[in-house]
Amino acid sequence: MRYMSKIITYDTTLRDGEQSEGVTLSLEDKLRIARRLDEFGVDIIEGGFPASNPKDIAFFRELREHPLKHARIAAFGATCKRGVPASEDQGLADLLASRAPVVAIVGKTWDAQVELALRTTLDENLRMISDSVAYLKSRGREVVFDAEHFFDGYKSNPEYALKCVLAAARAGADSIDLCDTNGGMLPFEIERMTRIVVEAVSPDGLQTDQSAASSIKAPRVGIHCHNDGGCAVANTLSAVRAGATQFQGTVNGYGERVGNADLLTVIADLELKMGCECVGAESLKKLMSVASYVAEICNFSVWAHAPYVGTSAFAHKGGLHASAIVRFPQAYEHEDPTAVGNASRMLVSELAGKASLVTKAAQLGFDLRQEPQSIQAILDEVKAREAQGYSYEVADGSLALLIARKLGKYQPFFTLESFRVIVDDREDYGAIAKDAQSEATIKIHVGDRRYVATGEGTGPVGALDNALHMALSEFYPQVNDMELIDFKVRLLDESTGTDAITRVAITLRDENGTWGTIGVSENIIEASWNALVESLEYGLMRIGA
Amino acid sequence: MRYMSKIITYDTTLRDGEQSEGVTLSLEDKLRIARRLDEFGVDIIEGGFPASNPKDIAFFRELREHPLKHARIAAFGATCKRGVPASEDQGLADLLASRAPVVAIVGKTWDAQVELALRTTLDENLRMISDSVAYLKSRGREVVFDAEHFFDGYKSNPEYALKCVLAAARAGADSIDLCDTNGGMLPFEIERMTRIVVEAVSPDGLQTDQSAASSIKAPRVGIHCHNDGGCAVANTLSAVRAGATQFQGTVNGYGERVGNADLLTVIADLELKMGCECVGAESLKKLMSVASYVAEICNFSVWAHAPYVGTSAFAHKGGLHASAIVRFPQAYEHEDPTAVGNASRMLVSELAGKASLVTKAAQLGFDLRQEPQSIQAILDEVKAREAQGYSYEVADGSLALLIARKLGKYQPFFTLESFRVIVDDREDYGAIAKDAQSEATIKIHVGDRRYVATGEGTGPVGALDNALHMALSEFYPQVNDMELIDFKVRLLDESTGTDAITRVAITLRDENGTWGTIGVSENIIEASWNALVESLEYGLMRIGA
Repeated sequence: MRYMSKIITYDTTLRDGEQSEGVTLSLEDKLRIARRLDEFGVDIIEGGFPASNPKDIAFFRELREHPLKHARIAAFGATCKRGVPASEDQGLADLLASRAPVVAIVGKTWDAQVELALRTTLDENLRMISDSVAYLKSRGREVVFDAEHFFDGYKSNPEYALKCVLAAARAGADSIDLCDTNGGMLPFEIERMTRIVVEAVSPDGLQTDQSAASSIKAPRVGIHCHNDGGCAVANTLSAVRAGATQFQGTVNGYGERVGNADLLTVIADLELKMGCECVGAESLKKLMSVASYVAEICNFSVWAHAPYVGTSAFAHKGGLHASAIVRFPQAYEHEDPTAVGNASRMLVSELAGKASLVTKAAQLGFDLRQEPQSIQAILDEVKAREAQGYSYEVADGSLALLIARKLGKYQPFFTLESFRVIVDDREDYGAIAKDAQSEATIKIHVGDRRYVATGEGTGPVGALDNALHMALSEFYPQVNDMELIDFKVRLLDESTGTDAITRVAITLRDENGTWGTIGVSENIIEASWNALVESLEYGLMRIGA
Repeated sequence: MRYMSKIITYDTTLRDGEQSEGVTLSLEDKLRIARRLDEFGVDIIEGGFPASNPKDIAFFRELREHPLKHARIAAFGATCKRGVPASEDQGLADLLASRAPVVAIVGKTWDAQVELALRTTLDENLRMISDSVAYLKSRGREVVFDAEHFFDGYKSNPEYALKCVLAAARAGADSIDLCDTNGGMLPFEIERMTRIVVEAVSPDGLQTDQSAASSIKAPRVGIHCHNDGGCAVANTLSAVRAGATQFQGTVNGYGERVGNADLLTVIADLELKMGCECVGAESLKKLMSVASYVAEICNFSVWAHAPYVGTSAFAHKGGLHASAIVRFPQAYEHEDPTAVGNASRMLVSELAGKASLVTKAAQLGFDLRQEPQSIQAILDEVKAREAQGYSYEVADGSLALLIARKLGKYQPFFTLESFRVIVDDREDYGAIAKDAQSEATIKIHVGDRRYVATGEGTGPVGALDNALHMALSEFYPQVNDMELIDFKVRLLDESTGTDAITRVAITLRDENGTWGTIGVSENIIEASWNALVESLEYGLMRIGA
């Protein structure tokens, strides 16, 4: 296979990623992300449009005053406007004013788009590309030319699309980044067309082009993909295989519509599967923490099923696999999870055996090898409870409490005397009725003190949660940092209606991460209560309260 | 490009998809998914392991008694055990006992795994493959051989991996499905190795293999990918490009770890980008509704950024793009969103579409063609309510009531004055506490009579259900035949905790079948109440009470 060993990593989370629905980044957010990516080893970080708003202007100023250690900052804009010389174009002036060492400018390469969207001639578009690149180069910038819609353009009019990238190359662009702007290409198409460009702008390719000045250095070729056809990562890898030496992506694949190529997946694939170097093996171990750091700032969770960095990415279920993994991990783990800072996770289920329980317990901080007599007792309890409807796969918190109880290490934070919940409602047929009210009164004992608290809420679980936080926060103020972020209910035995067993799964979050607990009861309120109690107990236990 | 135009779609949502963390499907869930995929045009539906549990046994029995219209059902298992003749193997006997017309058996092809996991000789593994396939063929089944870890196996020992698939081919397998079991392959690797197998098991390939009986028909080649490297869709497409004519996938990519190849993305890519036929252009328009139907049953949302079917897949943000799209939609939409039942989101669009509403309404007994003036009003109401959190995909009962209201055909069976629910509990840490008690008092009016009823139950929804049955049964004794069989709760906005919008989906059954309704509220009890009321109202309406 023919590819370069060093691949330049170009992050566009702060520009294209911010186009994602639901992502809005403050100046401080953008700076934190940039510094974290710098530390991670990303080579170029695209900061935004320096002219578009005061936030981006401040961003570039801040990074001039307190520069990054490794990464180069790129300002993003477009070629000069039609009919305007590059040296008089306001957009290019703004790019230069940002004083970013790298300037990325997007230009058209699809004939139809030049005519329909840009409303100018094909020749004028070539002039705009050439003039803009040459002007920015004359001002000492590293210039990345983003060839918008290159692949659609090449399919429509190969000669013209190539003319566009050659115009940028001849004008001295440092990188020609081919963009699959609408995200619809397939890997073999990307590979074929990228190879053509790599050859055209190579020293040999440029030499055969008579109009090229002999002094022009051949640019590198980069790739920028979107995931609309579900192939963004593969498309990026295919371009590298065809000779691209720079790729663009966003952390966690954030971006407009379906999103961009996931920078982190591409880095891991390139480093672990294709023998390339992006950030290096040491930094690669930070992959998972980069994913969650950036997600946290964007106010998302990392998708559990994300390649490499999701919590499920190396999670194993089923007795067959769990035992097989111990003997032959490669069979069910495509790479060593520790290489990207992740870990194998055994999902405890009724199929699981001793080996996977020991592994799982170790991840939760219990060394069962020291207490072999307890292993069978814990397994029996897990099995008995799973037969009753519990499911510990997504309830690490409840499992940790179960193990602690069996090991005699469980210290209850409080005991319940009773709770009562009252829900009142008057009829209001409408989309979302607002008038239902719930009130929960709990009576608990902490040490030798009895505490009665009443919480209100729109719903009964919220009212209970409020009452519990109220009662506990006096003794354990840390519960105020624990926030409920997901709540799921399932009826287990479908044949017996509303009095069937109900399973409630709850996810809590604090600054250290998320955890799940589970409650099972014939009564949905009681199941919720049990899950709520365990979620706070485990939250307190894991921080050593 | 060389590929077949008809590609066989093999769904494994009910088997491999159920391995996904958090997915647990009841018998009724599995049957509903199978029937929906059948209607969608999937060719083969893998139902599960017929021996592993009573649920799967019942699943195969139910589909024998009430067969699907188009799809063939597959039972999944493994080759016979080492040292056991196929005709005496219990697992194969169970597969046959399911009477599924298609049998898929997984077998090893990776030398290291044969030795480490299977703990037998390479020759015995070949015997197990050959003997099992031949035995199942002798019993008249269509046999799919799942070549586990084929690509890892081929990289490790190409000769042996090929011997395994040739053993299956020579024994008469109808399909050889190459599995990237740990999900770590890249598209160009998949393409190269698949092409080798396609040639080896082609009529020409088998003829040059002297040990093959001349009567053996060449099998088709299939592909089964996991997404651990982020390339499952591209890998599947690469195999088709190399000559595979069958692919396996799961709806929404559900599956262990990072998940399987997303069946829906692959279908859309094959149909729209590679000129293949999977379900056909008409069925393809149901792609988005299949995604949400199955997600709803699994108690998930469709991921907003899923290719083709996510709500963000064709959503456009930013002034530049929004105006550009009107002039030149191809620039930012890789395919026409209506081809997959989705829509551009910035355009004011009818998510449901008039034609599909008319069709759906007809299924529910309303002839909207007679009342064209109501169609837009109904669509507007559906849109408004879906924006508030309602989802009518699996709530036919609620949709029917909405239509009836808009047509002026809704006759309330009763009106509510108020309800109050009280839940009392005393602490009892145990598997399933039995002592919680709920009491619901409802005050309703039927005609000119006021009725106050108090129902008890273990849980609050059961208590409400009991009170409602009690009050209504005097006037409408038919409600006593209506039984609640499923009850699902989901929190819609995960960032706001227990007071977030709650969506409750309820399924009722009477002797004529099942129906679903939905309730949305900030209060789980109120959302449940609304869904309960609609479920009984629709139950009464559909029998003409």
